[in-house]
Amino acid sequence: MTNRSTGSNPPAPLEGDAHLPLYRRLYQTIAGRITSGDWRPGDALPAELDLARLYGVAPGTVRKAIDELVDDGLIERRHGSGTFIRRPNFDNMMVRFLLYRDPEGREIMPASHIISREIVPAPAAIAQHLGMAEGEDVIRMVRHRHWEGAARLLEDIYLPPARFRPMIEHSPEEIGPLLYPAYERLCGQLVCFIEEEITILDATPEDAALLGLKDGDLVVAIERIAKNASGQPIEWRISRGEARRFRYRISVG
Amino acid sequence: MTNRSTGSNPPAPLEGDAHLPLYRRLYQTIAGRITSGDWRPGDALPAELDLARLYGVAPGTVRKAIDELVDDGLIERRHGSGTFIRRPNFDNMMVRFLLYRDPEGREIMPASHIISREIVPAPAAIAQHLGMAEGEDVIRMVRHRHWEGAARLLEDIYLPPARFRPMIEHSPEEIGPLLYPAYERLCGQLVCFIEEEITILDATPEDAALLGLKDGDLVVAIERIAKNASGQPIEWRISRGEARRFRYRISVG
Repeated sequence: MTNRSTGSNPPAPLEGDAHLPLYRRLYQTIAGRITSGDWRPGDALPAELDLARLYGVAPGTVRKAIDELVDDGLIERRHGSGTFIRRPNFDNMMVRFLLYRDPEGREIMPASHIISREIVPAPAAIAQHLGMAEGEDVIRMVRHRHWEGAARLLEDIYLPPARFRPMIEHSPEEIGPLLYPAYERLCGQLVCFIEEEITILDATPEDAALLGLKDGDLVVAIERIAKNASGQPIEWRISRGEARRFRYRISVG
Repeated sequence: MTNRSTGSNPPAPLEGDAHLPLYRRLYQTIAGRITSGDWRPGDALPAELDLARLYGVAPGTVRKAIDELVDDGLIERRHGSGTFIRRPNFDNMMVRFLLYRDPEGREIMPASHIISREIVPAPAAIAQHLGMAEGEDVIRMVRHRHWEGAARLLEDIYLPPARFRPMIEHSPEEIGPLLYPAYERLCGQLVCFIEEEITILDATPEDAALLGLKDGDLVVAIERIAKNASGQPIEWRISRGEARRFRYRISVG
């Protein structure tokens, strides 16, 4: 690599293919430092000139990379104090994600019960979602969410062991009811992007039994892929619940 | 108002309550100019120093307002050329919004048929969504979306006449298949935020007849409120389709 720095230290290496524009490589490099936990949510990013010096790029290149990191929600500008690594906040989405109607129309935060955690060979579809090979070890965690005295939501969660081994080593109490904070706290894994696809399916006999449904009832299935700051898939899950109870809210813009 | 300008012209007035921080009032003022069509998508925002002079505020106040406008997606920074009014792009969401499964799993862009447009007294719930009084005139537009030779999606759309009268004066051909571009082109109304709520309901006899469903079949109902740059609700709609055919995709982060 040619030395683009004007200072005495050689510049730190940039991630990404050499054919990419420099600002994209700097973007990927900064995203990679968030992914690795080197820079954590709440941390201040170095000043733009320091980043320019560190990586041997022009200040304009730094500004362009930072603009895109802000656009993508990985960092945020706080007026007068600089730029900071952002903690993505999915709370609104999560809470509103499967709102089951309580009789007064209030939002319910369902209790979580981890039913099982095991290492299984990755089924083909799940391996593909997680960028793994079919049959490779994957953590499967089954969780039920309860309210009104019954399981209302069945969650099948798949995690690559290389990143998430603590999720089978810690007790359910240590994990707690919210998985993303546990991923960050116990595994150093930060979820930055999620993609969901919702479909409506016939209940399988097993789902029907667990959810107390009748033959011919429908379930709503929400498949979700969660990605880190570098855009790598780190969790895949499918959640199923009774279709008639389903309510989903989203804001965009 | 005290003159905060150092130049010879008195500053332009700021929108918003005098108790709000100046940067919030500048935010609302800029959002208001987008709402009014005074500044349109693609237009360059004046330079920060010019805005500071125009509104008689400090450059730091301008920067803070602009940071928040960028955060909220109303404007965008383009490196080396300044800041521009953004055209929110809901295409991805719209296309993915109700993906009905074609036999090969391909995405279908359904044909649109405007069935009726009329002015009706606003029902209480719709008046509330649109910030109008119950019984006030509201435009009701019914649209059906067709594929595989049948109506698959029934849309009931409500619009305040003060903003959207051209939507009943122009022909369906002039309106075309995409409503948001028509709102902008024909009415100068820009949709910047949308909120959706999805629920699953028993088909009414009318829905069942139009959608070709059997007694006891379920429909998915998507209620959507669309807001302009100032956060004012400008459209409310409910769309219904067969639950079993429903597929919805969303990315967040």
